Amino acid sequence: MASDGATIRHATREDVPTILALINELAVYENAADSVQATPELLLKNLSFEIPSIATSTTDPSFTPGHAKTILLISPEGEICGMGLYFYNFSTWTGTPGIYLEDLFVKPVYRGRGYGKAIIKALAKEVVRVGGSRLCWVCLNWNKPSLEFYAGLGATRMNEWVGLRLQDDALIKVAES
Amino acid sequence: MASDGATIRHATREDVPTILALINELAVYENAADSVQATPELLLKNLSFEIPSIATSTTDPSFTPGHAKTILLISPEGEICGMGLYFYNFSTWTGTPGIYLEDLFVKPVYRGRGYGKAIIKALAKEVVRVGGSRLCWVCLNWNKPSLEFYAGLGATRMNEWVGLRLQDDALIKVAES
Repeated sequence: MASDGATIRHATREDVPTILALINELAVYENAADSVQATPELLLKNLSFEIPSIATSTTDPSFTPGHAKTILLISPEGEICGMGLYFYNFSTWTGTPGIYLEDLFVKPVYRGRGYGKAIIKALAKEVVRVGGSRLCWVCLNWNKPSLEFYAGLGATRMNEWVGLRLQDDALIKVAES
Repeated sequence: MASDGATIRHATREDVPTILALINELAVYENAADSVQATPELLLKNLSFEIPSIATSTTDPSFTPGHAKTILLISPEGEICGMGLYFYNFSTWTGTPGIYLEDLFVKPVYRGRGYGKAIIKALAKEVVRVGGSRLCWVCLNWNKPSLEFYAGLGATRMNEWVGLRLQDDALIKVAES
């Protein structure tokens, strides 16, 4: 819960249109409006709408790490004004699961209320709950306000690492090589 | 299969001591020998030893994306000489799952045989199989031989993005804030 009484809940199938609207709004913010190929059908198929808090550990069969899930932040007025889309990852060094935050978004009009931190806090709690060790994400290196916000939370910058991605024709070429 | 007849299979519980030995060898290579806190018990608890190829789609209930899994590369002589440790991720833009390759390691004495590419190829095939769009990983920015190898595969460098991580005391502090 954020300090103004906003609440967080996991998304259900009924929230898919709202999730897609938030994804599109985020894409515009990241100068990537043309990048969104997600559709309601794809999100319904590929996101998980199970609520992980019913499980108590990674050995509980109802705990299904890795399916991407979405948490939504609801303002005191009942508006859905932000989301965190995440999945479980794994650290080889620690031997434990963690969470990768794929996307964090708070609608511009709702910024400055602590909602971004409330979403990160909810996921940090989930990492601790599953006996994990890390909450990870990436940020555009020109997004100074976000980088300062994350530094204020105590996040470490992984400056020594470069991300790599095999996709589109290059992916198919390697798969069929 | 690599061109010399080496094969790839998913790890079983019996492979855990070998996986931990490979993790330790990788840590030495990355100048991070002191970083390994993983134990056989943690790997047995937190890795998945289900074989995903028995499932045919993300809607198949036996398909459990997200549990971290390990594939092992076996030389024609029967030696385990490399591994790929991976889990399923998700792209908001595409609305589809993909694979994150957490660690790729081939024992130095077995390099130059195409084993690293064989491991990446196996995972690229798995991305295609599940209807995914991306195989992602990170690389140390001083590791020029690996970066050149990845460039040769057609991998895109995500130079605009910086990794962030909340861990240890900072993670607890946010979780309890």
